[in-house]
Amino acid sequence: MKIVAIAGPSQSGKTLLITRLIPEFRARGYSVAVIKHCGHGFLLDVEGKDSWKYRQAGAEGVALLAPGEMAVLRKSSGDPRDFRETAERYFGDASIVLVEGGKGIRGLKKVELVRRGLDPDGGIEREGRLAVVSDADVVADVPVFLPGQAAALADFLIANLPDGSIE
Amino acid sequence: MKIVAIAGPSQSGKTLLITRLIPEFRARGYSVAVIKHCGHGFLLDVEGKDSWKYRQAGAEGVALLAPGEMAVLRKSSGDPRDFRETAERYFGDASIVLVEGGKGIRGLKKVELVRRGLDPDGGIEREGRLAVVSDADVVADVPVFLPGQAAALADFLIANLPDGSIE
Repeated sequence: MKIVAIAGPSQSGKTLLITRLIPEFRARGYSVAVIKHCGHGFLLDVEGKDSWKYRQAGAEGVALLAPGEMAVLRKSSGDPRDFRETAERYFGDASIVLVEGGKGIRGLKKVELVRRGLDPDGGIEREGRLAVVSDADVVADVPVFLPGQAAALADFLIANLPDGSIE
Repeated sequence: MKIVAIAGPSQSGKTLLITRLIPEFRARGYSVAVIKHCGHGFLLDVEGKDSWKYRQAGAEGVALLAPGEMAVLRKSSGDPRDFRETAERYFGDASIVLVEGGKGIRGLKKVELVRRGLDPDGGIEREGRLAVVSDADVVADVPVFLPGQAAALADFLIANLPDGSIE
């Protein structure tokens, strides 16, 4: 399994880039999973639905099983930035995992998004940075791709990401 | 880990009974997880949110990691009635797992809900039935509890559920 983070400040285009990369990887025979780091929590469940009632009643977690798909909502005590453990536990069958966020994780291979008019993210851990994606005239010590070059970026990542891409 | 199904026809009070049982088990030192069998699928994700976009783009699954909680939405190829595998994989730290549904699963320990005015569920696999919960005058070869007797039912289940309650 290969793991790579798509890192950059808010509004830099992380979600769009990931939605462009997913079909490129799939076209190359990879199965893809995404891990999104939500520093401020997330709202997924709907009040009044059974799964919300169970959590309100004190359940550690709720799983919904349906033909062809499943969902798990649960409390967690671990570090929400432990992407590798999450990837292996929940997506062991995926051949590449894209992490939305993860800018500060040392040892995680990364693509940095730099967008014209936005300050670059000072919190990005540069060690492990493999490429930059930008619409600006960026000088970097790694290859720079335009936001629309998802196909070329997918080829580059396949060639340059080691298996088990967190050391 | 103990596993027990709360089985019965639609509108028989499965969700209500589970929300009553959760705090009773917690008060007795158990951590509780719930698995809900959704024969016709579920609607949990919200169109326009990132997790929906990733699945639409072809991702096998999406995980959301936040401080203290997480969610996983994924395609699955297994049998959605394989509750034990789901319980062990996703809720290995829970001491009791309540399954909403699961009426037809042989070898799964069950509580059957029978409600006045509703036909009993003909599809219930009686082998493994430990108790009946009913507001009607039911004759059964297992103990019968009233819907409000969640505390007594929790005590009974703790005493009578084996560990790893699927043989």
